[in-house]
Amino acid sequence: MKSMRVAIVGASGYSGEELLRLLLRHPHVEIACVTSRQYAGKPLTEVHRQFEGWPKAKGVIFSGSEISEITASGAEVVFLALPHGLAAEFAAPLIKAGLVVIDLSADFRVADVSVVEEFSGQQHPAPELLKDAVYGMPELHRDQIRSAKLVASPGCYPTSIILPLVPLLRAGIISPERIVVNSMSGVSGAGRKADVSLLYAECNEDARAYSLPKHRHLMEIEQELSFAHGAQVNIAFHPHLIPVNRGILTTIHAELKAGYSQVEATFEDAYGKEPFVRLLGDGLFPELKQVVRSNFLDIAWRHDKRTNSVVLLSAEDNLVKGAAGQAIHSLNLIANWPEKSGLI
Amino acid sequence: MKSMRVAIVGASGYSGEELLRLLLRHPHVEIACVTSRQYAGKPLTEVHRQFEGWPKAKGVIFSGSEISEITASGAEVVFLALPHGLAAEFAAPLIKAGLVVIDLSADFRVADVSVVEEFSGQQHPAPELLKDAVYGMPELHRDQIRSAKLVASPGCYPTSIILPLVPLLRAGIISPERIVVNSMSGVSGAGRKADVSLLYAECNEDARAYSLPKHRHLMEIEQELSFAHGAQVNIAFHPHLIPVNRGILTTIHAELKAGYSQVEATFEDAYGKEPFVRLLGDGLFPELKQVVRSNFLDIAWRHDKRTNSVVLLSAEDNLVKGAAGQAIHSLNLIANWPEKSGLI
Amino acid sequence: MKSMRVAIVGASGYSGEELLRLLLRHPHVEIACVTSRQYAGKPLTEVHRQFEGWPKAKGVIFSGSEISEITASGAEVVFLALPHGLAAEFAAPLIKAGLVVIDLSADFRVADVSVVEEFSGQQHPAPELLKDAVYGMPELHRDQIRSAKLVASPGCYPTSIILPLVPLLRAGIISPERIVVNSMSGVSGAGRKADVSLLYAECNEDARAYSLPKHRHLMEIEQELSFAHGAQVNIAFHPHLIPVNRGILTTIHAELKAGYSQVEATFEDAYGKEPFVRLLGDGLFPELKQVVRSNFLDIAWRHDKRTNSVVLLSAEDNLVKGAAGQAIHSLNLIANWPEKSGLI
Amino acid sequence: MKSMRVAIVGASGYSGEELLRLLLRHPHVEIACVTSRQYAGKPLTEVHRQFEGWPKAKGVIFSGSEISEITASGAEVVFLALPHGLAAEFAAPLIKAGLVVIDLSADFRVADVSVVEEFSGQQHPAPELLKDAVYGMPELHRDQIRSAKLVASPGCYPTSIILPLVPLLRAGIISPERIVVNSMSGVSGAGRKADVSLLYAECNEDARAYSLPKHRHLMEIEQELSFAHGAQVNIAFHPHLIPVNRGILTTIHAELKAGYSQVEATFEDAYGKEPFVRLLGDGLFPELKQVVRSNFLDIAWRHDKRTNSVVLLSAEDNLVKGAAGQAIHSLNLIANWPEKSGLI
Repeated sequence: MKSMRVAIVGASGYSGEELLRLLLRHPHVEIACVTSRQYAGKPLTEVHRQFEGWPKAKGVIFSGSEISEITASGAEVVFLALPHGLAAEFAAPLIKAGLVVIDLSADFRVADVSVVEEFSGQQHPAPELLKDAVYGMPELHRDQIRSAKLVASPGCYPTSIILPLVPLLRAGIISPERIVVNSMSGVSGAGRKADVSLLYAECNEDARAYSLPKHRHLMEIEQELSFAHGAQVNIAFHPHLIPVNRGILTTIHAELKAGYSQVEATFEDAYGKEPFVRLLGDGLFPELKQVVRSNFLDIAWRHDKRTNSVVLLSAEDNLVKGAAGQAIHSLNLIANWPEKSGLI
Repeated sequence: MKSMRVAIVGASGYSGEELLRLLLRHPHVEIACVTSRQYAGKPLTEVHRQFEGWPKAKGVIFSGSEISEITASGAEVVFLALPHGLAAEFAAPLIKAGLVVIDLSADFRVADVSVVEEFSGQQHPAPELLKDAVYGMPELHRDQIRSAKLVASPGCYPTSIILPLVPLLRAGIISPERIVVNSMSGVSGAGRKADVSLLYAECNEDARAYSLPKHRHLMEIEQELSFAHGAQVNIAFHPHLIPVNRGILTTIHAELKAGYSQVEATFEDAYGKEPFVRLLGDGLFPELKQVVRSNFLDIAWRHDKRTNSVVLLSAEDNLVKGAAGQAIHSLNLIANWPEKSGLI
Repeated sequence: MKSMRVAIVGASGYSGEELLRLLLRHPHVEIACVTSRQYAGKPLTEVHRQFEGWPKAKGVIFSGSEISEITASGAEVVFLALPHGLAAEFAAPLIKAGLVVIDLSADFRVADVSVVEEFSGQQHPAPELLKDAVYGMPELHRDQIRSAKLVASPGCYPTSIILPLVPLLRAGIISPERIVVNSMSGVSGAGRKADVSLLYAECNEDARAYSLPKHRHLMEIEQELSFAHGAQVNIAFHPHLIPVNRGILTTIHAELKAGYSQVEATFEDAYGKEPFVRLLGDGLFPELKQVVRSNFLDIAWRHDKRTNSVVLLSAEDNLVKGAAGQAIHSLNLIANWPEKSGLI
Repeated sequence: MKSMRVAIVGASGYSGEELLRLLLRHPHVEIACVTSRQYAGKPLTEVHRQFEGWPKAKGVIFSGSEISEITASGAEVVFLALPHGLAAEFAAPLIKAGLVVIDLSADFRVADVSVVEEFSGQQHPAPELLKDAVYGMPELHRDQIRSAKLVASPGCYPTSIILPLVPLLRAGIISPERIVVNSMSGVSGAGRKADVSLLYAECNEDARAYSLPKHRHLMEIEQELSFAHGAQVNIAFHPHLIPVNRGILTTIHAELKAGYSQVEATFEDAYGKEPFVRLLGDGLFPELKQVVRSNFLDIAWRHDKRTNSVVLLSAEDNLVKGAAGQAIHSLNLIANWPEKSGLI
């Protein structure tokens, strides 16, 4: 199988590090360049010591983040693991230079620029690219991803929420109204930043809700749910921080419009052949420990007869299925490799 | 202030240990006896080494759990920290012997014996006592507790759910329908039992939902909500286990029937003078670390305009406000001591 | 018993917060002032929300850190919970103004200014005060503390190391040579500072040694060991960071010069009547969970016949016995209150 | 490269599970059978749900643990992940049947049966096999492993202790006397057993020493050190339990006989070309997070001039380099595959 050269821009944060962990073991990928303003000139294994001794990490040096350095590296695909807002500045020149961009930020996930600007309170830096961006969720947009020039790889919470809801909304089994979503995320989701509220002694033995009731991830969640339903869907979303390094656990309450008995078949139809969605049925519970460091999303469901509702439960690794792994899944589609390449 | 002799039956589990931690420092309490079938004859400080050096722990020896041993100890009040089902067997003879019983199990919390038997699938061992039992939530039943002979001290989840909901239900501010409750609990909530699923290496870096959709705590939650609303209330309840030793964090979604602007005043009316409820308003978030090892329940709220709902957030220590501390609050009422005695 | 007004300077870090937790419940203490440059003018309960609802916290406002503000508060004793180096600047004027100073920093713990300057690489800001400073370890210097004007309260590691070693060194039971000390500390020991290496996702599921082989705490450890031995003692000291919020666990290897059978009696003689040292003997192991949030230091020992050595094991809470609790123990001595006042 | 069929006996514990995690991704291995008395007849992915969706796990069913079932599976190599004592009963018939046995228990690690029986207090079940067993530490016994019929794969603590010490002992740089070793282990090291002392709420926020001063791992540690030194070596060994799932961190104090300047070159000579030993030198510190889920052992060193000693520091994953990974390294040698196969 033909191998491909790829670049990672912004490889010092948790998502960038996870991209490296996966790409350094990917059988068909060659690392063309890794960039970091902070670490330019340093060996990769000095910054991320855990990769010392990995064959593909040998000799890799961080370069600066100039567009010319990236294009000169021979990369065909570039992953952007940058803060929201910054990614948009990189995408335009890189696409113009003929590279395929897989962006892990939120910059291109929402097609409606007015929604983006409402939530962010800022002007979008590259609105002209929005129309070409493909929301990089292979289970929903596989064919578009194959030919995309700009993949907007989904956020961690959205992945854990959209995938359980979309098949039931599409099939009209649940009501699009009054959906209540509770999620809890590991602390790596907040990024590697020097912030007192993220210190070990502040997060350990603690748990808290935050960014309620209008978390910026609502934009892309509701976009995809509305698309599935065929009309605008608004949900309630309650994110929480819990003391684990990795993982998102989501519990969703949705009212039944059709019989509960159709839930299982609907999920089987939607995801029975998906390589990275595991259907646990209505007997088991998803757990973080079953999914961390993997690209799987586990989904289970229960019938709450007392409220005529279905409870949907999902678990994923926020840095893999919720970030780096899903992005590489898109790469596998673009490169026409087997979808599990480098992801098991 | 007159001191009082108390007994603790079943002092080897987490709730019993927490009762000891608080009662050994309570300024008006003398320990009359502590019982444990497993540890009868052993010094208290051999079983719970952390109490070595505490003045009131000196010389305390575990006795067996015979009724006669308890009554002979001179105890006026007895705390039952026993598994569900077993407490009922102790309560009847102790009450008959003239002791006041404060029961931390679920045995007497629900007045309707048919509901209890539906949820437990078993016959209630002492249904004749149910009519005399007072649900030991001081904020709701203060006066009845003062003169109770049998206090059914509330469960940990119920405390974190009932207290935020009752004032708004009573005032008709929220709809009694479609209330969705998500809670997460520390692992001590599962008790000190040798169970592989509770091992450190199984719970650490993990999180999971469980006992969905019909957790046995629903009984008492819905009893108190129905009482507040004046008609039957059914809710959706999603409990989760998270890797902390202590604490329950609850997030509730409820639809507004009246204006959000009334929420704050309603809470102020209900709890403004309560010694152990802290109202954080709609700017702060409750956190476990603010409440663990205390008897406080912290409550905050938010307006979710997009779904015309209120989000209620609460945090407590499952072993204190959710168990031992709340039970001692009842003792303080019964003994007519200041309510904060031994609880700050 | 006569109560006393005290001030806490620098009450925003972990040690200052722990001082507050203990002093707000101390039966004989009134809070005269708490200072913080960062929080001047804010209510105490806004900065440390967990104290909301505590009777003595009501109405306490952070003041600035001017000497005049402290002296005007009517405080008789002032606790300094400041970074190393800064404390010395406060001590001189406060002592001059007639206050007793209990300093939790390292500034006055070592009497020999040349040692201090060797380890710190900096000039000591107030060397003239060193001769009056008393090392605030009640088990070793009880009488001097009672009349001290400046108490240099010991460090967290030193407390866990000095107390097990001193009686055996004094009695000549162990060799002063080749003592090897391994300690592991909870993350609060590193302070509340925005440092990427202290983030939750960096410390959780991690453990590491640091500051080897010449940790700055060696100064005060060796000073006290040398004092006990009657000649210079140098030890090997290996500190580690482990993922717990609180606690220090220390394991010491020392060669026997006399019979192991004398170890127990020597410890009994030294600490049998001490209120905060618990002797576990050679059957039990100290554990962090037995000591956290208490002022106890637990000590155990074992005979390693294969190397003709004794293994000494100790556990304490780094913020209580290793900082705030020990400092309050000194206050109790100075004020002539029962030693356990406010510390059980 | 020729692939090989392997069996795993006892695949329900943590080491067995880790063997599966690694072997299911090993490019040259086919799983011939996995056995478990408890789970016989169940699909592998029902017991270890995290492997659902892994291509090689598809269709694998647990078989019983009869010798005939194992030999009939066509396995050429069998891994024994059984409790100590039980492994010996399996090894003899399997070797007789022509299989190569890689045993992860302690049963064959120590050649001197009298030492084994002294430490275990029990008669060895298969002493006649001891002479043929090879201690499976590739860095020390690579050539013997290649042709071994019975590999006694090393224990977790021993690996972290032997590898740092052997080169310096061989070269006479450190004294064989007065070596003091402190180790801390994650909780998975205690196995997946229903034991109250291993519960989450008992281990979290705790740390403790245990099995002092004569841990059963001393046997194999001292065997290998004595072999390196050429005469009997006795060490002091202090194991501790800390609240992480995985990992062992070891800190060793050893007295210098030769110049510290030779330490680095000696390590480079010994391990400079080793695929799984990483030499950090005397500037960095090993950390658990750099090695967990990898087969690397990281080693660093420091000069403690004050005691004329060297401090050796190491970190590894107890389940990988300390168990399953090292065992697979032996398999790679036996099968003549590249040593890193399946281990990066």
